[in-house]
Amino acid sequence: MKSENQLIYEGKAKKIFAHKEQNKVIIEFKDDATAFNALKKSKFKGKGELNCSISNHIFKHLISYDIPTHYISQRNNFSFIAYKIDIIPIEVVLRNIAYGSLCKQTNIKPSTIFKKPLIDFYYKDDELNDPILTLERIKLMHLVNDNELKLIQDLTFKINEILKEFFLKINLKLVDFKVEFGRNQKGDIVLADEFSPDNCRLWDLKANDGKIISLDKDRFRNDLGDLIEAYTEINNRINNFISFT
Amino acid sequence: MKSENQLIYEGKAKKIFAHKEQNKVIIEFKDDATAFNALKKSKFKGKGELNCSISNHIFKHLISYDIPTHYISQRNNFSFIAYKIDIIPIEVVLRNIAYGSLCKQTNIKPSTIFKKPLIDFYYKDDELNDPILTLERIKLMHLVNDNELKLIQDLTFKINEILKEFFLKINLKLVDFKVEFGRNQKGDIVLADEFSPDNCRLWDLKANDGKIISLDKDRFRNDLGDLIEAYTEINNRINNFISFT
Repeated sequence: MKSENQLIYEGKAKKIFAHKEQNKVIIEFKDDATAFNALKKSKFKGKGELNCSISNHIFKHLISYDIPTHYISQRNNFSFIAYKIDIIPIEVVLRNIAYGSLCKQTNIKPSTIFKKPLIDFYYKDDELNDPILTLERIKLMHLVNDNELKLIQDLTFKINEILKEFFLKINLKLVDFKVEFGRNQKGDIVLADEFSPDNCRLWDLKANDGKIISLDKDRFRNDLGDLIEAYTEINNRINNFISFT
Repeated sequence: MKSENQLIYEGKAKKIFAHKEQNKVIIEFKDDATAFNALKKSKFKGKGELNCSISNHIFKHLISYDIPTHYISQRNNFSFIAYKIDIIPIEVVLRNIAYGSLCKQTNIKPSTIFKKPLIDFYYKDDELNDPILTLERIKLMHLVNDNELKLIQDLTFKINEILKEFFLKINLKLVDFKVEFGRNQKGDIVLADEFSPDNCRLWDLKANDGKIISLDKDRFRNDLGDLIEAYTEINNRINNFISFT
């Protein structure tokens, strides 16, 4: 039994603490940033608060569309309360447009728009560098059963439809994103982890000359300018949109 | 138009030369060995001839079971004549037992026996380090159409059944293998490349204490003893079996 505020787990960008209620946890955002499987590391003052704010908004929005999630409520500027879940060690990446690692592992040209979004699965294992998984390998690894895998795919497509539309309203193109799922105490699959520009690509639609303006972690990955400025811009657009509607 | 014996292509372990008949090529085996995407390199005097001999036998055996291949006939001790084909840039790996890279990219334990063999596809591209491909990625890459992909899978399973039985008769366990396919001048899918201990795992069944005795390129990859001795043993067992039957 963990006592209140005891550290349960520390990841690259978040810490998880025990909550006084045993079925809940506190998820706290860090200012640390890593890329390329932690080969590149840095810290950005304010990133944790921005990602916490953005994640809070996104989870509330998804819940309003009946997406099951682990999210309960915002706790303070840099943490939220969530249900304790068993995380499934699979990173689910959905791509609307080809970019990043996909183009380094295939002959698919950057900026190719997919008619149907592509979902890739990766094994969440830092020691193994999060290798990509085929459906056959997932089955042999017994990480999820067939029904759960189908549900995870369906939920990811649905999340994409909801968020593509949401970001479009604030002039952002949702290029791709990574989500994680877990099983709650009833054994049901729920969206877990976070949703922030650390784990998605968002391009500014205000750029009308066809040039890509990244407002996401690619700023850090590829040295494309001030990361905090970009995340602040996303957070402001979300806040303005919400206060307006 | 290439003149007779003009080098068309040089790979890591083979050279391809023009043949006087334009629809044919000469495939010559080299003594060079590479592993881990050519990070480890060496040369083994006699390897080329042994692999050529083994490949000749395997192709003839597969043809006797109506597997379509590019193979025509042995030319000399270190080369054979094949039909000129368009190679499909996909490496098809079939695994009867989990071993090697698979166990470094998943939670699957070495020596796990699969009820149904696992097929993995890799993009044949040295610069990209031959990345693994999901079925979805293969479709988006337009490397093969759906019918061809199905045929390649079916042929690979059939080749496995034929060769598992063949190697069992000479006390060898076929653990896994890599094959490549191409399109012949009619556009039909045929088995191409080679079949040798450079591209498969063969364990000696004479070891009765449960220890794994590798008679394949793992000897070079993992410094497990004399490679030429192992390849010679395989070639001798095949020759003895054929002269006996």
